[in-house]
Amino acid sequence: MKKDAIQIGIIGFGTVGAGTAAILLNRQKTLEKKLGFPIRIKHIADLDVKRSRGLKLPKGMLIKDSKKILYDPEIDIVVELIGGIHPAKELIISALKQGKHIVTANKALLAESGKAIFDTAAKCGRDIGYEASVAGSIPIIKVVRESLIGNKITSIFGIINGTANYILTKMTEEGVEFATVLKEAQSLGYAEADPTFDIEGVDSAHKLTLMASLSFGLPLSFKKIYTEGITRITPLDIEFASEFGYRIKLLAIAKQVDNEVELRVHPTMIPQDDLISSVNGVFNAIYIEGDAAGAGLYYGRGAGDMPTGSAVVSDIVDIARNIKTGAVERLQGIGTSVNPALRIKKMEDIRTCYYLRMSAMDKPGVLSKISGILGSNNISIKSMIQKGRNKEEAVTLVMMTHEAREKDMVRALKQINRLSIVSDKTMYLRVEGGEDSNGRH
Amino acid sequence: MKKDAIQIGIIGFGTVGAGTAAILLNRQKTLEKKLGFPIRIKHIADLDVKRSRGLKLPKGMLIKDSKKILYDPEIDIVVELIGGIHPAKELIISALKQGKHIVTANKALLAESGKAIFDTAAKCGRDIGYEASVAGSIPIIKVVRESLIGNKITSIFGIINGTANYILTKMTEEGVEFATVLKEAQSLGYAEADPTFDIEGVDSAHKLTLMASLSFGLPLSFKKIYTEGITRITPLDIEFASEFGYRIKLLAIAKQVDNEVELRVHPTMIPQDDLISSVNGVFNAIYIEGDAAGAGLYYGRGAGDMPTGSAVVSDIVDIARNIKTGAVERLQGIGTSVNPALRIKKMEDIRTCYYLRMSAMDKPGVLSKISGILGSNNISIKSMIQKGRNKEEAVTLVMMTHEAREKDMVRALKQINRLSIVSDKTMYLRVEGGEDSNGRH
Repeated sequence: MKKDAIQIGIIGFGTVGAGTAAILLNRQKTLEKKLGFPIRIKHIADLDVKRSRGLKLPKGMLIKDSKKILYDPEIDIVVELIGGIHPAKELIISALKQGKHIVTANKALLAESGKAIFDTAAKCGRDIGYEASVAGSIPIIKVVRESLIGNKITSIFGIINGTANYILTKMTEEGVEFATVLKEAQSLGYAEADPTFDIEGVDSAHKLTLMASLSFGLPLSFKKIYTEGITRITPLDIEFASEFGYRIKLLAIAKQVDNEVELRVHPTMIPQDDLISSVNGVFNAIYIEGDAAGAGLYYGRGAGDMPTGSAVVSDIVDIARNIKTGAVERLQGIGTSVNPALRIKKMEDIRTCYYLRMSAMDKPGVLSKISGILGSNNISIKSMIQKGRNKEEAVTLVMMTHEAREKDMVRALKQINRLSIVSDKTMYLRVEGGEDSNGRH
Repeated sequence: MKKDAIQIGIIGFGTVGAGTAAILLNRQKTLEKKLGFPIRIKHIADLDVKRSRGLKLPKGMLIKDSKKILYDPEIDIVVELIGGIHPAKELIISALKQGKHIVTANKALLAESGKAIFDTAAKCGRDIGYEASVAGSIPIIKVVRESLIGNKITSIFGIINGTANYILTKMTEEGVEFATVLKEAQSLGYAEADPTFDIEGVDSAHKLTLMASLSFGLPLSFKKIYTEGITRITPLDIEFASEFGYRIKLLAIAKQVDNEVELRVHPTMIPQDDLISSVNGVFNAIYIEGDAAGAGLYYGRGAGDMPTGSAVVSDIVDIARNIKTGAVERLQGIGTSVNPALRIKKMEDIRTCYYLRMSAMDKPGVLSKISGILGSNNISIKSMIQKGRNKEEAVTLVMMTHEAREKDMVRALKQINRLSIVSDKTMYLRVEGGEDSNGRH
């Protein structure tokens, strides 16, 4: 093996770019000792070359023009860390065409336009590393692609958005409203000025797209994921969940049964004694179940300069090792091993347990009316609590159902919400781990 | 890449051998599709070719003579699954000399005689896969060697023996004595007829040896690990631990501070809200902390035919990919990148918090005598409970201390146990996560 350096160019010197550079610069010697060859940053390109990132770079390393990286024949690996769809997509495609390998943390890009990128990489015979695009420091991509290679993966349950988990954790611990916690998270830098992707589940759906494609052999299916955010969760629901022995988490779920895969992101009630319900704050965790390995949980920091930088560096090293040993394309890209028999289950056909919270008049016959509607839609009640007793105003009815079909639940809720004895729209949440927990704790 | 098969020979057709064979046989087609080439079992050797393992093997696959595998020029990878030191060591060494790559789940062998094996592998230019030797289905070896490559690893805390964890869990849930649960575990097949390695912490120390060597760049240091088992834990200690907000787990601990590494296996009190304290039954979990990635937890099945087989298969696939792409020795073996400056900290020099349970006469002055001894040994009490009040018999005193040095604690306990007012030997347990939890939950 030649001892000459693998040269890299980083495009985007934000949080993750700075973390990546810090690791590569500070650990240069140790890495060289472990690998048998050096890895060098040749250039970092960013439009802003003024702002301090708290990192002393060698003179001339930081440049404005990313083209200098794309067209530098000495650069082996281009690390794309600018995020967003454009111009990241164009940069990556031209880097591949210039013969560069790619490392990226860009889940939105891969989930929404990954096919073009993986196809180009395959055509150019180049590797793409994207460990950092899902769950920061948690090496879930490597686990699926390599460690679980002998398994048929049956299900994935992930808390993969730190902002949403931070907000739900705070709401749970302090009993505060969603809007209040969001504001606080924004001022602390845990939520962005436009938090839509995080709180509406879009970011989780991006990451689930990548994991599901790898795990089940699906084409990238971002648009087909049912996605529901956390904005309608109230402290009241969190409190009732707790009374029933549950916590509320924003889960990204993928399950394969026969030739159908469920793909959904939504706030979910999980039993308190399930390990994943104790994952708090900005931490991420992913349960993944294989037919041989059984259930495993992977937990760690899902974002941040150094944790995500750690994942970027692991990809750089993997690709550098491939280049040095001539083992490029050692692993297949996403979507290259598609199972054509597999279908995505329609959301209306999924079966799950539900939590319902309704406001109804405290009159004789009310409960029989509501349970009648549920029953005629094949939904049976597992337990129920009535909160308060008040002849003049509506009281709160909280129910947990046995497993039912989504389509039936949607129809039943329409009928219930139409009743004159029911004020306000009925709140409903899906429940996991109630009747089929698979020993996940 | 040539499409011809990678041929493997498995030596040892016990639990893990059967799991490995089942995965390779059942998933042959899927694996070939994912890898681009087939992996074939040529032979499985076992002295017992009669007993049914619930698996239909092709005719002629199962043989008695392992030499047929060692000297078969068509076989690329030898999978050693017989366990124990001899003849496993000799088999592996001669397989390496015959040019075979090795996959093994044999932690005892690698921890106690790994140097000879890794040295031979390096001399012969062959790969050794040992993912299955630590924590079954949890891919901790890959995580350390590849995913955390950019990190300086600072600490490891592992529940890595399912038998001990099963026993402690049962004792905790049912308040039963150690001996009773052990017997039950033996009858259920969770503990072996000779359970010494599991309950005395030896098996955990074997696994810690491998993880510590990889993580810190230490030579294999099994003999230098402080090892203490769970036999002296009583239901009473578990109950008191719970009163103070802790659970008792058998932990394998490795921590690096400056140029010293602590290596120890002992029952440990962990705060109840720490994720790892909720790891129950036969499950394993490993916390690992890197300077960039932060703390991560890896949880899953630590033993069993299919979970361990899943890890064996991941190693076979990795090596097969290396063979096919000419990337053999892509990763360094254990102990090849040793940091010569590193020392193993003497057990007497470690600092930790302690739990103490003593039987003392309920007389005036007793507490002042005991706390006097602790104080004069630089140990200060954080909290204390006296259980019962009885002028005639001894009562139980339970204490939690602030951080103290092990040497001081050992000396203080000697002095306390010599007091005439103290009956029975004082029970003590080390506590983790009290004063320096590092946000591990």
